[in-house]
Amino acid sequence: MASKRRTTARRGESAQQMAERQREISVSEFFTKNRHLLGFDNPKKALLTAVKEAVDNALDACEEAGIAPDVEVTLKAVKGTDDRFTVTVRDNGPGIVARQVPHVFGRLLYGSKFHRLRQSRGQQGIGISAAGMYGQLTTGKPIRVWTRTSRRKPPDYFELRIDTKRNRPEVLHHKQHEEFDVAHGTQLEITLEGRYQRGRQSVDDFLLQCAVANPHLRLVYDPPDAATEEQKIVYERATTELPIEAKEIAPHPYGVELGMLLEMMKASAAQRVSSFLQAEFSRVSKRVADEICRLAEVDPKAKLRSVKAAELERLHRALSKVKVMAPPTDCLSPIGEELILDGLQKEVEADFYAAKTRAPTVYRGNPFQIEVGVAYGGESMGAEDPVRLMRFANRVPLLYQQSACAVFKAAVGTDWRKYQLTQPRGALPLGPMIVFIHVASAWVPFTSESKEAIAHYPEIIKEIKLALQECGREMSHHISRKKRQAVEAKKRSYIDSFIPHIGDALRDILALSEKDREKAVSNLRDVLEKSRKM
Amino acid sequence: MASKRRTTARRGESAQQMAERQREISVSEFFTKNRHLLGFDNPKKALLTAVKEAVDNALDACEEAGIAPDVEVTLKAVKGTDDRFTVTVRDNGPGIVARQVPHVFGRLLYGSKFHRLRQSRGQQGIGISAAGMYGQLTTGKPIRVWTRTSRRKPPDYFELRIDTKRNRPEVLHHKQHEEFDVAHGTQLEITLEGRYQRGRQSVDDFLLQCAVANPHLRLVYDPPDAATEEQKIVYERATTELPIEAKEIAPHPYGVELGMLLEMMKASAAQRVSSFLQAEFSRVSKRVADEICRLAEVDPKAKLRSVKAAELERLHRALSKVKVMAPPTDCLSPIGEELILDGLQKEVEADFYAAKTRAPTVYRGNPFQIEVGVAYGGESMGAEDPVRLMRFANRVPLLYQQSACAVFKAAVGTDWRKYQLTQPRGALPLGPMIVFIHVASAWVPFTSESKEAIAHYPEIIKEIKLALQECGREMSHHISRKKRQAVEAKKRSYIDSFIPHIGDALRDILALSEKDREKAVSNLRDVLEKSRKM
Repeated sequence: MASKRRTTARRGESAQQMAERQREISVSEFFTKNRHLLGFDNPKKALLTAVKEAVDNALDACEEAGIAPDVEVTLKAVKGTDDRFTVTVRDNGPGIVARQVPHVFGRLLYGSKFHRLRQSRGQQGIGISAAGMYGQLTTGKPIRVWTRTSRRKPPDYFELRIDTKRNRPEVLHHKQHEEFDVAHGTQLEITLEGRYQRGRQSVDDFLLQCAVANPHLRLVYDPPDAATEEQKIVYERATTELPIEAKEIAPHPYGVELGMLLEMMKASAAQRVSSFLQAEFSRVSKRVADEICRLAEVDPKAKLRSVKAAELERLHRALSKVKVMAPPTDCLSPIGEELILDGLQKEVEADFYAAKTRAPTVYRGNPFQIEVGVAYGGESMGAEDPVRLMRFANRVPLLYQQSACAVFKAAVGTDWRKYQLTQPRGALPLGPMIVFIHVASAWVPFTSESKEAIAHYPEIIKEIKLALQECGREMSHHISRKKRQAVEAKKRSYIDSFIPHIGDALRDILALSEKDREKAVSNLRDVLEKSRKM
Repeated sequence: MASKRRTTARRGESAQQMAERQREISVSEFFTKNRHLLGFDNPKKALLTAVKEAVDNALDACEEAGIAPDVEVTLKAVKGTDDRFTVTVRDNGPGIVARQVPHVFGRLLYGSKFHRLRQSRGQQGIGISAAGMYGQLTTGKPIRVWTRTSRRKPPDYFELRIDTKRNRPEVLHHKQHEEFDVAHGTQLEITLEGRYQRGRQSVDDFLLQCAVANPHLRLVYDPPDAATEEQKIVYERATTELPIEAKEIAPHPYGVELGMLLEMMKASAAQRVSSFLQAEFSRVSKRVADEICRLAEVDPKAKLRSVKAAELERLHRALSKVKVMAPPTDCLSPIGEELILDGLQKEVEADFYAAKTRAPTVYRGNPFQIEVGVAYGGESMGAEDPVRLMRFANRVPLLYQQSACAVFKAAVGTDWRKYQLTQPRGALPLGPMIVFIHVASAWVPFTSESKEAIAHYPEIIKEIKLALQECGREMSHHISRKKRQAVEAKKRSYIDSFIPHIGDALRDILALSEKDREKAVSNLRDVLEKSRKM
């Protein structure tokens, strides 16, 4: 079998021989081999991940363009198979200009969201091309894209594949005037190996949760088993108002590493140190810039290009020492308590609801904001089961890796016994409850490229706990009230059942008339009710 | 503050405006922003990760060259600071040819190990450059490299940085004849922000475990607080024999996706389908190749370049259906039971040791092999604490993300009560025990680029469980024997304490002589001892 061995790798190799084998690894090759890092571990999850990436992109595009999103997700098994699916996602967004289409869908690490600080669903420039790449890997089928930017322009149609060796798109087919009957929008089609299953962690579950966290979304879902128009699932929008616009912000002085400061100085158009600081950082006024320079012993008027290594270091240290306001938080776009309540009430049947949107705060210079909603009680939830967490990051439902997530850690680390729930040690509390938790941030620190869990930043965990506690206290009042009412009801039922017997006894003993007996019973009831209420 | 906003991101944007912001993200930029994915989450872990990447590379290089590794790790705080460290790792490996040095250390996704199938510590071409990049980001200091490939050639010295915008090395300084007094080898120096702390998950812990899993390694460690030569920690090698050489193998038919098959066909020098299959896959003889073609209804003599999409699909399906031997497993290099026992006995004081090397097997076409060692009992370990896991992947200790690891899942999923340990539900068993688990594979499926945990492949979990059970049974015999001995000792002590009193009583009652009393006592003791043993 010697012919099957790469003859280059042999013990006793010299540095020269080893050098022959050194070569570049393209990012597409890397993620093809490591596709589990992107959420394509297995066919079930792959199907979900593809839908998720496409829906995320559709929603981001609509919101940026100021359009109330209208999204249609179609999931159909490829004829004659049950392990291949075609995922089609169509939106009414602004469309994509033709020259960008191959890059957006046919290249990893390409996009508009990575280099800016502001809340959006996508942030890496990987997801959707990875979904296409997975489709190509498992079925050989190209990605198909229809897009139109305006009614005055013809739609474009593309068939694309990724050249994984170079991480570059290959356009297999491109034509205009393709049938695509919308004024503007994009439709994407990926065929991939997948497994369709309802229930937890399913596409169905994801889309339902999407609707809850995005009340401005109208979503039509045509699942694999729907045969008629009526069997499509429609989530109507709860509001036509778009979320608050998330604004792009500059980096905050507290979150900047030395190397990043250097890059920013290189890239800046500013001439002097002070003007550079004011132009490139948020919350740095002239006064703050001068204070930074004073702490760093650097002349504020020094030429930016002539700053020496030692001065750079001192500037870096000064950045973290200077007193400066927290970063602006209009880069965030929370859902809001009212809409969280609406969403929960629409989708979950319960006795009690509460929601809390915390004020924005900061981790490592990045603004973030926590929102929590709870739905408690009711027939539909098991009283003895662990409560169900619904986790969201920038309005995107997170369905996998719950136990690795900061949200889970915060929920487990909260003392729910204070709020009248049973809680096994180191576990989620038990009870008929759903907890909705939204982490909104200009940069969500995910534990992997598949964006399934949020890293354990103490600031984030602390804020989640505080929000849970606020909701917990309200819920606790509700549970107490319910308990009191139950006790009341029981006492009342005692009175109701025993008084008539006492009445009968009195009538017999005192030989009362029927009327007197009724009067006695009624008097007794009044007396007892009064004494019970005291 | 409008001046600080990127004016390009505004609600109501058109597709044209959005297109302006689409751009490439370099892989270095990506991992700078997501450095927690590479193990640089915080200063303590960053220090460990840098040491780990450098040591992994040193060991891989030595083994490939057939050299018994001699590695020296020096960790020193930068003068006047306690949050900056210089990590120096020197090996006696084959050295690196000068033209490759900048790429190996100054570029992410570059290396010799990604494109081959065989057990090695490195596999991504990311680690060491990422460590340098983190150093540069946090301290601005370049990576320094000394290397020499032979005594006949002068050493090379480099100072490098990574241009993160382009993911390419920048050589700041390069000269020959630099002082580096070894015949061959490499020395690497990285200065980075770090935190030094002993104990679990420390550099010290990592290096000790390295020595256990690599008995052919001589390691000298000069920790931050060592002031004299004597305070260096030296791990001598337990064997001068190098591990079995891991051979490179071709992919196995069972692990190949459609897209990968297509790439392989494109890259192959073979002319015909049958010869392609034989040349590019392991375990595919002419007979097997022809069987694949028969199943796929493709002519074995068909020209490779003329294979159509439908034929490709059929070939792909046939690849997973044909009967074929498991892949060759000489791509693996296990430690071996004897050396595992040696290592444990050297580093852990215990009453009982066992080790098991399972036969190699396969997940998704990739060969892997499980080895387990246990050390049980003794004063040094807490009897009420959870047992300690020592996890290894291709001989590299894994110190973080234990609960996300397949090894942990297998250990928790084993029923240890069968082996006489207490085990809380869903948790590790309690007891004075260390469990050593080694996963060796041509491709270890890590859950993230930081290579801290192994993904939950059922085949891997199953093999680990089987190995744990084998060791568990041996350990259980030991525990039973110990328990029996303890009971024996107790019973014997009863007999010893009571019989003389009975003798006294008999003497008094029956008026025995002292001699008779002694005889009676001795007879009684014999009878009791005998009955006790029956």
